[in-house]
Amino acid sequence: MTLLPEKLLTGYRNFMAHRYANETMRYKQLADQGQTPETLVIACCDSRSAPEIIFDTAPGEIFVLRNVANLVPPYAPDGEYHSTSAALEFAVQSLKVKNIVVLGHGRCGGIKAALDTTSEPLSPGDFIGKWMSLVGPAAEAVSANELMTPFERQTALERISIRYSLKNLRSFPCVDILEKKGRLTLHGAWFDISTGELWIMNPETGDFLRPDPEEVAEAAALE
Amino acid sequence: MTLLPEKLLTGYRNFMAHRYANETMRYKQLADQGQTPETLVIACCDSRSAPEIIFDTAPGEIFVLRNVANLVPPYAPDGEYHSTSAALEFAVQSLKVKNIVVLGHGRCGGIKAALDTTSEPLSPGDFIGKWMSLVGPAAEAVSANELMTPFERQTALERISIRYSLKNLRSFPCVDILEKKGRLTLHGAWFDISTGELWIMNPETGDFLRPDPEEVAEAAALE
Amino acid sequence: MTLLPEKLLTGYRNFMAHRYANETMRYKQLADQGQTPETLVIACCDSRSAPEIIFDTAPGEIFVLRNVANLVPPYAPDGEYHSTSAALEFAVQSLKVKNIVVLGHGRCGGIKAALDTTSEPLSPGDFIGKWMSLVGPAAEAVSANELMTPFERQTALERISIRYSLKNLRSFPCVDILEKKGRLTLHGAWFDISTGELWIMNPETGDFLRPDPEEVAEAAALE
Amino acid sequence: MTLLPEKLLTGYRNFMAHRYANETMRYKQLADQGQTPETLVIACCDSRSAPEIIFDTAPGEIFVLRNVANLVPPYAPDGEYHSTSAALEFAVQSLKVKNIVVLGHGRCGGIKAALDTTSEPLSPGDFIGKWMSLVGPAAEAVSANELMTPFERQTALERISIRYSLKNLRSFPCVDILEKKGRLTLHGAWFDISTGELWIMNPETGDFLRPDPEEVAEAAALE
Repeated sequence: MTLLPEKLLTGYRNFMAHRYANETMRYKQLADQGQTPETLVIACCDSRSAPEIIFDTAPGEIFVLRNVANLVPPYAPDGEYHSTSAALEFAVQSLKVKNIVVLGHGRCGGIKAALDTTSEPLSPGDFIGKWMSLVGPAAEAVSANELMTPFERQTALERISIRYSLKNLRSFPCVDILEKKGRLTLHGAWFDISTGELWIMNPETGDFLRPDPEEVAEAAALE
Repeated sequence: MTLLPEKLLTGYRNFMAHRYANETMRYKQLADQGQTPETLVIACCDSRSAPEIIFDTAPGEIFVLRNVANLVPPYAPDGEYHSTSAALEFAVQSLKVKNIVVLGHGRCGGIKAALDTTSEPLSPGDFIGKWMSLVGPAAEAVSANELMTPFERQTALERISIRYSLKNLRSFPCVDILEKKGRLTLHGAWFDISTGELWIMNPETGDFLRPDPEEVAEAAALE
Repeated sequence: MTLLPEKLLTGYRNFMAHRYANETMRYKQLADQGQTPETLVIACCDSRSAPEIIFDTAPGEIFVLRNVANLVPPYAPDGEYHSTSAALEFAVQSLKVKNIVVLGHGRCGGIKAALDTTSEPLSPGDFIGKWMSLVGPAAEAVSANELMTPFERQTALERISIRYSLKNLRSFPCVDILEKKGRLTLHGAWFDISTGELWIMNPETGDFLRPDPEEVAEAAALE
Repeated sequence: MTLLPEKLLTGYRNFMAHRYANETMRYKQLADQGQTPETLVIACCDSRSAPEIIFDTAPGEIFVLRNVANLVPPYAPDGEYHSTSAALEFAVQSLKVKNIVVLGHGRCGGIKAALDTTSEPLSPGDFIGKWMSLVGPAAEAVSANELMTPFERQTALERISIRYSLKNLRSFPCVDILEKKGRLTLHGAWFDISTGELWIMNPETGDFLRPDPEEVAEAAALE
């Protein structure tokens, strides 16, 4: 009887031999004192864009919500189960994070599905269809522009979706209030799987730009 | 203007200098050919239990859904937005993963909230309260036993919740059918933040046990 | 005529050839000067959890009471025969031990019997049924939670029973007085037969934790 | 905070490093398959006469009841808590042991207390006084013989007590029946702490004799 996929068991052995061995005290402290992450990252489930890898974080540094296409639905206090809103509420109200980063990425399967209106539902429940309908109007608008290539259309929708999620984040009263008080900052970023580049959203213009190497170096120097 | 929290910028520089530099070909290939992860991991948002770290995975290996307390709600094809069900559908039907791992962990804030019936909602929407009410009956059953310590009660509910999520996974027709055909295997695991130990669920009894070191070594030898 | 089971005779020959041969002086001294054990261990009769083996003790170090499920009944000066209370009184008042350790263990047959309410008495006297009824209310509370596995329920009751015995120990005036004077310390521990692990009770929370390897090493260094 | 007496922590480390390390498979098997000891040993709590040491037993070989002076009270199905009877019932009826050994020893504190009629109770509950009153008439008879030295009187009562316990064992219907059917054998033995000698009771005469060295060697050869 295989209790876990073998790759994961082997990986776990590596974790214990290296990472945990090196950071034992940190793990013990995090267990005793609880987590105090300063940042909530909302990322995609995609196997190629794990925030802990891309940001090379230590345990305890980022609280991470992951769903398909890193979407935040609009505020809807309707008594239904909302896993995204629950994670957001916990991060902001209980953990009191100072930053929220919506991290999108290229070649996103969810965004691709939103643009592909000809395909059949994946299953009778059509959960992906419904979930991606959150960006349905945006997908339609992007699709209408036949002068862009399919690749360009997908990148465009990936970035529009990040701005859409940031807008929805602000529809939550607690986010809106804390941001206005200067106690919470919202960020957008987009990861290029192929080149490894991180494009960061300019909060004023909404444009995605690669960070100035000097700024990165400066941040490193401040550490 | 700080575009991203400085820690994340520095971390990203490390990622580019080390991980991406070492795995450039893998990233490029994953971008060109798309992802083919064999395993869906359903994990908690907690900043101390990132699956990519615990399983020391390479990019492309695991598709990761993260919500508070790694819960899977029961199958409900009601046309509402279900981020968990959407990710599940995408992983099983589109990516055709072979394994699903529900990864819980100790000292889970969501589970603690479920057991604490005296606290106020975190915000008027009470999203955490509603979300954790998925395991409300189990929390009540656990709380009824006052002879267990709070820590013991929490561990008990953390493990009951993993079994609950596995049961709900099987309420999805696609999961049920593929598991019965032997094309999909479900697993439960629980990570001890303090000791770094991974307790794996025995699928027959539901008990959580640490993997036999020999089995781990064997898995490593098979690599 | 076989005077003793052969295994015991052979074992006794080994004892004389090795242990007694190596510790002759100690045995002679202990015979001449009497015993002065510093610790009373209250353990289970189980053949797999002998305190002298688990704690690798020398002769004379621990005074050992063993009954089914290592239970201490509440203080009851009623003039009846109480073997547990007699041993306790002798250890505390006559030998003046400084520590009492209640040592439970996993897969305890007595605890299992307490949780199994459907079985017939083992004999008309039903001595086990009556003896285990000491933890009857706790067994009921544990059994009420059907979401835990049988194994989890048994572990829970094993640990609750240790806390119960510690509480009853404190119902003996001599224990209570000496503990308050700081001349007697009470401990709880639980032995995992399968892994060999010893889980030690935190006296403040009642939780069972494995001892920090560093603390064990430190104790060794102090020897 | 010291969770356990340091000596025990150090001893436990030795156990893990040597005994458990050497017998890991046996412990795992005993945990998986349960215990099947062939012998119940009824011994004294005394710190100098641990049956596992004297008989050099492996884990799982002997089920061990220990009370002050290794006494078995007479059969009394009165609905009270009887720890000795409970252990006996469990060993005979559930584990189906083939042998019962009552193991007494020299310089027994309990027996000494029974012979000392001038001393005060150890505590108001006088649990030792009550417990040792089981052999009160025998103690009186022995004390009446002023021609024996105190040491001789004590040895005499230690051996009378073993025969008394064996008689009481036979008052339990299950013991009596199984012994008559030849499925259970009763033994008496007395351990001399100073010399390490084991004196074994001849079941026909009740005399205690040192085992014939040849018989011990023979038993060893049969292994």
